[in-house]
Amino acid sequence: MSDDRMSSVVRPRPDAAVTLRPVAGGRVGGGFWGARQRVNREVTIPLGGERVRESGAFDNLRLTGRHRGKVFADSDVYKWLEALAWERGRAEDDDLAASYKEAAELVAAAQCPDGYLHTHTQLTGRERYSDLASSHELYCAGHLMQAAVAGSRAVGDRTLLQVATRFADHLVATLPENALDGHPEVETALVELHRETGTRSYLDLAARFVATRGHALLPLKGHHGPGIRQDRVPVREAATVEGHAVRAMYLAAGAADVAVETSDLGLLDALERQWRDMVATKTYLTGGLGSVWYGEQFGGPHDLAPETAYCETCAAVGSIQWSWRMLLATGRAAFADLIERTLHNAVLPGLSLGGDRFFYVNALRVRAGANPDDFRAPARGRQDWYGTACCPPNVMRLLSSLDHYLATRDGDGVQLHLYAPGTVRAGDVVLEVETDYPWSGRVEIVVRETPDRPWTFSARIPAWADAAEVSMAGMDDRPAEPGSYHRLRRTWRPGDRIALDLGVRPRLTAAVPRLDVARGQVAVERGPLVYCLEQADHPGVIVDDLCVAGADLRDGTAVAGLPADVVPVIARGRAHVHREEDGGFPYRTAAGPREPEHGGPVDLTFVPYYAWANRGVGPMTVWAPMHR
Amino acid sequence: MSDDRMSSVVRPRPDAAVTLRPVAGGRVGGGFWGARQRVNREVTIPLGGERVRESGAFDNLRLTGRHRGKVFADSDVYKWLEALAWERGRAEDDDLAASYKEAAELVAAAQCPDGYLHTHTQLTGRERYSDLASSHELYCAGHLMQAAVAGSRAVGDRTLLQVATRFADHLVATLPENALDGHPEVETALVELHRETGTRSYLDLAARFVATRGHALLPLKGHHGPGIRQDRVPVREAATVEGHAVRAMYLAAGAADVAVETSDLGLLDALERQWRDMVATKTYLTGGLGSVWYGEQFGGPHDLAPETAYCETCAAVGSIQWSWRMLLATGRAAFADLIERTLHNAVLPGLSLGGDRFFYVNALRVRAGANPDDFRAPARGRQDWYGTACCPPNVMRLLSSLDHYLATRDGDGVQLHLYAPGTVRAGDVVLEVETDYPWSGRVEIVVRETPDRPWTFSARIPAWADAAEVSMAGMDDRPAEPGSYHRLRRTWRPGDRIALDLGVRPRLTAAVPRLDVARGQVAVERGPLVYCLEQADHPGVIVDDLCVAGADLRDGTAVAGLPADVVPVIARGRAHVHREEDGGFPYRTAAGPREPEHGGPVDLTFVPYYAWANRGVGPMTVWAPMHR
Repeated sequence: MSDDRMSSVVRPRPDAAVTLRPVAGGRVGGGFWGARQRVNREVTIPLGGERVRESGAFDNLRLTGRHRGKVFADSDVYKWLEALAWERGRAEDDDLAASYKEAAELVAAAQCPDGYLHTHTQLTGRERYSDLASSHELYCAGHLMQAAVAGSRAVGDRTLLQVATRFADHLVATLPENALDGHPEVETALVELHRETGTRSYLDLAARFVATRGHALLPLKGHHGPGIRQDRVPVREAATVEGHAVRAMYLAAGAADVAVETSDLGLLDALERQWRDMVATKTYLTGGLGSVWYGEQFGGPHDLAPETAYCETCAAVGSIQWSWRMLLATGRAAFADLIERTLHNAVLPGLSLGGDRFFYVNALRVRAGANPDDFRAPARGRQDWYGTACCPPNVMRLLSSLDHYLATRDGDGVQLHLYAPGTVRAGDVVLEVETDYPWSGRVEIVVRETPDRPWTFSARIPAWADAAEVSMAGMDDRPAEPGSYHRLRRTWRPGDRIALDLGVRPRLTAAVPRLDVARGQVAVERGPLVYCLEQADHPGVIVDDLCVAGADLRDGTAVAGLPADVVPVIARGRAHVHREEDGGFPYRTAAGPREPEHGGPVDLTFVPYYAWANRGVGPMTVWAPMHR
Repeated sequence: MSDDRMSSVVRPRPDAAVTLRPVAGGRVGGGFWGARQRVNREVTIPLGGERVRESGAFDNLRLTGRHRGKVFADSDVYKWLEALAWERGRAEDDDLAASYKEAAELVAAAQCPDGYLHTHTQLTGRERYSDLASSHELYCAGHLMQAAVAGSRAVGDRTLLQVATRFADHLVATLPENALDGHPEVETALVELHRETGTRSYLDLAARFVATRGHALLPLKGHHGPGIRQDRVPVREAATVEGHAVRAMYLAAGAADVAVETSDLGLLDALERQWRDMVATKTYLTGGLGSVWYGEQFGGPHDLAPETAYCETCAAVGSIQWSWRMLLATGRAAFADLIERTLHNAVLPGLSLGGDRFFYVNALRVRAGANPDDFRAPARGRQDWYGTACCPPNVMRLLSSLDHYLATRDGDGVQLHLYAPGTVRAGDVVLEVETDYPWSGRVEIVVRETPDRPWTFSARIPAWADAAEVSMAGMDDRPAEPGSYHRLRRTWRPGDRIALDLGVRPRLTAAVPRLDVARGQVAVERGPLVYCLEQADHPGVIVDDLCVAGADLRDGTAVAGLPADVVPVIARGRAHVHREEDGGFPYRTAAGPREPEHGGPVDLTFVPYYAWANRGVGPMTVWAPMHR
């Protein structure tokens, strides 16, 4: 199949060492994600523009007055511009185009004659690159490059691409040998700029950054060691991910880009090893990453306490970026499984259903009687915006580019990774997808256009699926294997219809024993969605006292205060009786652990975790103890 | 009995509304605490002097050059001076006296002509009291006053007392109406200075601070609300403790002092209510306080995760200060119970056995494979000193004044609260105590001097004691009631011997069900000591995988690398088998929680928690799951 001009966030060069390639025309056409995209376009992105404007980030670009906001304030503008660009690519719109033009021209005008651009440095007069460990100069450059690539790919606008290439040329020409930004991000951006422009020196610079990292060259900061900035162990040698979770994800994504573009299979193997260790020992059930508030870091293995989970929304976005690159490189379903999990349960909770409020931190539990002065944001609900506003525009740009993650192609056919109604154009194949996923597990794929020769259609059978519940045409001779692609090779005809049923019966989930914080507890999942118990649905008891009392779960009907399409899960439960005697010193001599005493049966209503805190904020938990 | 001149940290005025009064001559004469006091005197205090000197805090007092260290650096000097004073009172010593004199004279010389003293303000030229929320000016003044009272009471030295009274007079005369320090401490100090000097205005100022607090008058800081500094709810109205744990304890201690000296029983009731809520919902098994790293705060009720426990050593010291004042006020054993628990398990772990290394934070669990960049101090072991060095000299002054907490008297007799070998002089009663407590539960009290009239001897039967194991002369007619005082009233004769046996058989402890982080788990205690599993004693397995497999515990013999008198506890256990299949995504569909698979029986060696991390630092846990 031909190498189309593809509107895609990642577009490996023709000689890149990848197994799968993005397709030109994935397009979400409604359903679950279509609704989220509409809210993103109509509410979140316009509101984001206002907030960015109010923060002073546009004024900074005018290079007058004092710099406002954080040193990385420029990046808020760039990420928002990237979202605008992808949105314009999905459907051109005068307002979007005007907003884009205004901001892009501000950016262009702010650039120094030699190509440098970082308003904090320009406005404060601080020496360029004198404090790269903290200044975020290259981090901002990276976001500029990504916005520029989006503008170029989505609508052919070269305003920002010229700015980005001039800046990149300046970096190539002037950056000292061992220069490293404290916050990785520019690596993946440089590779994409190389992909967009063909300029090899951008790839070389990214490769140099990846190779230089991990030798403790960055100055230390505060109480932290070099690991906080992924500067303790070289990427090629690391066995796991560590330090600041967002930085770790961006670095890994960039390293994966470098690996495939330079056919560095050793580096790719190292990244896959780290990814597997992350998934096995450092990933929350939601796909969220980072359990240590101090430094927004990964904890040690199995250090995944639900209440103190950090799970920064940006880390989830970064995780999807890394996994997508690994999926293209290897074609392995595990990467797509994590993308689906993370998208539904770690990115989406970052945004209110109305699209106008944001979580930066995503805890898996909020306790009754939480300290009213506790900074931990989940207990205080989503916020309008943040002083460090990295997360909101990160969600915007991901939702605007979600189409790119639906499908891929290889020499033999087309692979469907995410399920949403819409169309997939891959060379001379056009597929139409009809589904009410994730509420229903039924996905119908209609072949609209096809060449007159055999090719393979591959559908991801998610790891969460129950093999016995999965059905698909042509599956009779081979059982479904959750966590892999089911492949059908044939000469397709226009109008052929593939009916896939993944089964989304609600299920209980338990953790391996080493994951001590979940011992004795279960979670409820349904399809790709992680559920939670929320106080709003359980008047008269507090969520802290609830436990699951049986493994039989059923779909409920509409939940008050949530959109009508949301399917709750009903479970049998009991509420622990808080006894008078429990009100004293809470530790007592006993022959063994004290089992709670429970009252009569109650119905538990589980709602999707992404939808929590949309009806006020109260106690919530993803994990609940199981009554014996 | 007469109102002796008492060397005591707390000395209520004769008309104070207290039930119990300190005694003149409690004196630890060896044993467990005697050994700790010797190390404190011979190693910790001299080392503390060096560290304080190195920190620049003495240089600051010379008022030349730039201020070094934190804004509260002066308080390190004062707390260390307080320890020196109490030590000199216990046994005069030329070196201690010379060290004291040098530092006290530096302090005196640094005072401004009008009585003000705060070297950070003096050296930076910042306006006095212009940023009381952060400047710690009154916090330092409080520590100065406490050192001054110690010098006066312990050795009759009035150098610092003159400095302190001039400063206090200055505060009384000049502080604006609503002035409040961000960090409470001066309240309790002012009351004690009032007690020492009789100057009523000091008490009035303390009472004003207590009354002013809780009306959100302090400017907010960072992301915190007013609760972080106990400025959200007035002390008299609060139902619980909240915010920064050390500040909360110091404030409560000061409020208790104000309450008894002003016979404000409403305030005292409020404090008792808060104390009970703290004990029921916000206290770790160790007595440690504070579960939120961000802001060193209390969490919500039952928010007591062992791994992320903050349990600042200073908060434990402050807790003892508060509980002691409540004990004097009410005579209730619960306060002494918490003092004993906190002293052994929350203060003592803050100091290495050698006396030269310190924990600021005291976690109840350290996991295998902890993030090497994690700032959380426990995983990195005790440190030589801290940039914020509040904890080390706090432990020093407490150990130097520990004698004061052994016993009290009332109109009817003498009460023994803590058990250590030594003597207790209370008016015309002299008792001698012989014991190997806490290793043994046997305590023998010999009446050495007694008036020829009946009086009541009261011994605390700790709440942890098993009534069936407790024996005491005269107990035949009344069973022991753990958590109360056992009283013997008679006309005592010199030479009378009271044999008390509290029983220190090792026991399993469980938590009430709402304390979810301990569900399914047990801890081991023995007498007043909380135990833990430490990696050093379990080669070949990791502590994370260990569980208790039976309720029968026994005393072990000496533990390699710990002092010979330390009694370990041996329990039957098993090690969870980590299976290959557990190495993937750690969440699986299941009908219920996944129970670990366990290998054959192993002996578990529990060691006292206070002694952990003296043989290197590795995984450790206070709570362990119970095998079913």
